[in-house]
Amino acid sequence: MTEKNYTLCASCPDRAGIIAAVSGFIAGHGGSICEASQHLDQVSGWFFMRYEIRADSMPLDLEAFREAFTPVADEFGMTWFATASERPKRVLILVSREDHCLADLLYRWRSGDLNFELAAVVSNHPDLESLAESHGIPFHHVPVRPDHRDEDFARISELYSHYRGECMVLARFMQILPPAMCAQYAGRIINIHHSFLPSFSGARPYQQAAERGVKIIGATCHYVTEELDSGPIIEQDVIRVHHGDTARSMAQQGRDVEKQVLSRGLRYHLEDRVLIHGNRTIVFA
Amino acid sequence: MTEKNYTLCASCPDRAGIIAAVSGFIAGHGGSICEASQHLDQVSGWFFMRYEIRADSMPLDLEAFREAFTPVADEFGMTWFATASERPKRVLILVSREDHCLADLLYRWRSGDLNFELAAVVSNHPDLESLAESHGIPFHHVPVRPDHRDEDFARISELYSHYRGECMVLARFMQILPPAMCAQYAGRIINIHHSFLPSFSGARPYQQAAERGVKIIGATCHYVTEELDSGPIIEQDVIRVHHGDTARSMAQQGRDVEKQVLSRGLRYHLEDRVLIHGNRTIVFA
Amino acid sequence: MTEKNYTLCASCPDRAGIIAAVSGFIAGHGGSICEASQHLDQVSGWFFMRYEIRADSMPLDLEAFREAFTPVADEFGMTWFATASERPKRVLILVSREDHCLADLLYRWRSGDLNFELAAVVSNHPDLESLAESHGIPFHHVPVRPDHRDEDFARISELYSHYRGECMVLARFMQILPPAMCAQYAGRIINIHHSFLPSFSGARPYQQAAERGVKIIGATCHYVTEELDSGPIIEQDVIRVHHGDTARSMAQQGRDVEKQVLSRGLRYHLEDRVLIHGNRTIVFA
Amino acid sequence: MTEKNYTLCASCPDRAGIIAAVSGFIAGHGGSICEASQHLDQVSGWFFMRYEIRADSMPLDLEAFREAFTPVADEFGMTWFATASERPKRVLILVSREDHCLADLLYRWRSGDLNFELAAVVSNHPDLESLAESHGIPFHHVPVRPDHRDEDFARISELYSHYRGECMVLARFMQILPPAMCAQYAGRIINIHHSFLPSFSGARPYQQAAERGVKIIGATCHYVTEELDSGPIIEQDVIRVHHGDTARSMAQQGRDVEKQVLSRGLRYHLEDRVLIHGNRTIVFA
Repeated sequence: MTEKNYTLCASCPDRAGIIAAVSGFIAGHGGSICEASQHLDQVSGWFFMRYEIRADSMPLDLEAFREAFTPVADEFGMTWFATASERPKRVLILVSREDHCLADLLYRWRSGDLNFELAAVVSNHPDLESLAESHGIPFHHVPVRPDHRDEDFARISELYSHYRGECMVLARFMQILPPAMCAQYAGRIINIHHSFLPSFSGARPYQQAAERGVKIIGATCHYVTEELDSGPIIEQDVIRVHHGDTARSMAQQGRDVEKQVLSRGLRYHLEDRVLIHGNRTIVFA
Repeated sequence: MTEKNYTLCASCPDRAGIIAAVSGFIAGHGGSICEASQHLDQVSGWFFMRYEIRADSMPLDLEAFREAFTPVADEFGMTWFATASERPKRVLILVSREDHCLADLLYRWRSGDLNFELAAVVSNHPDLESLAESHGIPFHHVPVRPDHRDEDFARISELYSHYRGECMVLARFMQILPPAMCAQYAGRIINIHHSFLPSFSGARPYQQAAERGVKIIGATCHYVTEELDSGPIIEQDVIRVHHGDTARSMAQQGRDVEKQVLSRGLRYHLEDRVLIHGNRTIVFA
Repeated sequence: MTEKNYTLCASCPDRAGIIAAVSGFIAGHGGSICEASQHLDQVSGWFFMRYEIRADSMPLDLEAFREAFTPVADEFGMTWFATASERPKRVLILVSREDHCLADLLYRWRSGDLNFELAAVVSNHPDLESLAESHGIPFHHVPVRPDHRDEDFARISELYSHYRGECMVLARFMQILPPAMCAQYAGRIINIHHSFLPSFSGARPYQQAAERGVKIIGATCHYVTEELDSGPIIEQDVIRVHHGDTARSMAQQGRDVEKQVLSRGLRYHLEDRVLIHGNRTIVFA
Repeated sequence: MTEKNYTLCASCPDRAGIIAAVSGFIAGHGGSICEASQHLDQVSGWFFMRYEIRADSMPLDLEAFREAFTPVADEFGMTWFATASERPKRVLILVSREDHCLADLLYRWRSGDLNFELAAVVSNHPDLESLAESHGIPFHHVPVRPDHRDEDFARISELYSHYRGECMVLARFMQILPPAMCAQYAGRIINIHHSFLPSFSGARPYQQAAERGVKIIGATCHYVTEELDSGPIIEQDVIRVHHGDTARSMAQQGRDVEKQVLSRGLRYHLEDRVLIHGNRTIVFA
């Protein structure tokens, strides 16, 4: 039984008194803080913070909390948001043919390990329909045709709107999203790339890794931006390989890392632990 | 050139308003916070915090800062301390015959990687005298005789007092300290144990590990308490071994882990990042 | 499409000429070796080896291969076996209520990531029946009653015999097997323990870890022997935790390590990469 | 006291009977094998092997061993060499201004952790002279002048010849070697690069890593080839960083990884555990 909390995330130019103002605001309403994290980026002079507050410790519903906080935020020129932990985000998962990431997310969704509402699975191939539907999740087959990409991605956007999606997860989708779509849903599209970025971006990273003869391979969970495999990194991890490994055996072992890194990165996003700053992330893990 | 900061560490029973009071106090004196960390232990209901504040942002020297903060601390029943980052702690290093941890600490001390004042090296064997003295560090040979332990450890305590020691590092000292000494310097004696505690406490951990056939070995940096190898853990790390490894090859590889874990744990302590709570530590790394 | 190979594993007291005799035997039949691994344990003076040979490179079926090799084995006093890679082992999985290891093994079985024949799932609780049956796997509920343990475990042994089991996997079974059963199936029962053994053997390891304040937790895959959590270790791995983690959050994160370690250990066993020597394993990974 | 062994390393196109021929040759001379490793690269069809044989188990000195083995090697078209473990390689270390790798290698050399003969330290800056000389090692200051690079590197080659160097270690040398020098000493020049290659090759890798916002950084030990930071990789390792890390704090933490990776890679090379195949390595660790 998770407690009902409000999560407040904010960033602004640094100056004296930010923590005092925010924590003073919370204390002024009797709020009980269960987690507080701050980070000052000394290079940019930007300040980031995240607070989890017990909802029932304050006589404010979320809307009232937001309204009451607005003057504080305005005073410091904050970019900010406040969410309620009991409301899971609605997620659309995009896949292609490989099922290991989808199967892992389905397990974590069903078991409650990750807290989200799984709206639908969309794929450019029909292969994973039965996997999705056996979990009672709508499956949409939207082929991505080289000569009708705009139309096809428009269809995916429609589905996202239709389901009132709040987050799109590319669980080995293997397609490059149109720039306009990346811009429209900036900070809400999460990809798992099967290499330790910036090494081996683009296609066939395990093949590249085998050819380069690296001794360690990895996976990267990042927000999708217009530039391929170059968005803000949320999480990475690696495993050791050796001379006996081929592109194929690396791919097999890599699947476990991909699943782990995607689920950890997605967890941070779902729990509002990630703040994006330029092309980097602050992750209050 | 590290900036001059004050570090404020405090813990107290949780209640609403702690962060607001502390950060309000700092803001009230115009203080600029560069790092702020908090932790609520939900099990014990205890709250922990650490702030780094730019010294020159406030019109208070350290003594005045302490005096001004005392009423806030008293209000919440805090256990607390405040230190100045520019004053390095005076450290006594105790060793036996193995030199890898001492050599590593000497390198980190000389290169400025770790910020401390190395007062003296004390050993129950004469072997490492030239290593210490080649770095210009006084070396004291204090044999620990089975039938004169009290007397010999009294001599070590005298040296610690003589040098006005603030921290004692057992860098593979291989001797069990008398309970009274553990109590007297509680929270100030740091040991490196060459196993992944609680596995293989006591003597010959690599031999134990080889016999048990583990696939991973490790090292543990912890505060020394009366009960052998059971004090609050500051830091641990591990490396993978395999069936080809013997107790001897584990010891060889383990030395690198020991050095790393000791230096990381010691760094946390020297930077006042560790709060002890019962037999556990909060490490604001 | 994996090639059809024979795997030959053998161990014997060391003496000159072992490799020459075995590889000479293989070469004498025109055999093409794809993998060759040897290990000399210098402490015990025992020699271990594993060869993978392309089946179609020799004019011998498995039975004929075994017969032809017997004189070589006898000459050196070898303990040995030879298997055919295309014949998957028949596995019985024992579970209790937690489903993460079972779900992971089901996924790896169905996707072909692990090569085995999943004969049945047996549990002392009915909870996971639908998970097993949705994959088309027979599920047997065998309550383990404190006052009828012998009878109940006899039922499990019967099921193992009925399905002609070759390997029993305790995927968080949470019950202690009777000594006679451990002895009867020595080297064929694989357990996943949710701690980094020998730390925290027995019950509630995450609770123990949280209380001890360790900075790293882990999981251990080992063969089951009469002595609880003390059998030969096949594989271990760890993850870093910190002061914010509770027994509950450690358990949540630990599940991922348990799944990984169990699947890696089981893979080594299924591929005949593990030789047991006393209470230790040689793993030709 | 390590035993005196011969190490035999060889590679050749795969065909049936290689192991039988080599181990048969060894057994024919009564040789006792303490380590045997083989690897078949299925992609290229190339076979690699390494044997350690107790020198005193055969009535052959190294020269006689080489002569006797030549016909076997010729039969299979092997590239091969045989060395005696008791003869340490003569090593020249090249450094610039940073001392952490040099200090680590000096410690490992002096303590016997790494078995090599340290011929001299060469640097394009005078800074580390006293460090080298305090260990009794000759130090040569050879400035690398932008407009006299050929001449200056010729001087370094002369020193290498003068000291009859067998291995050159670039311990943060920070200079690009001339192509001719890379070619002349191919497979004998070892570099430590302060990133997880192929990420962040070239200059200022920690700065690049901080800008890209990666969550893990690393170091790479590799043989130097004409193409910058692109030679065969011997060893890599990584550490986790987070949003609080700057290029400077990454550099500080990275030093520990650099030292470890360089010493491990160098150990493999000194113990003749590395075979180069195209742009990759087989490391019989």
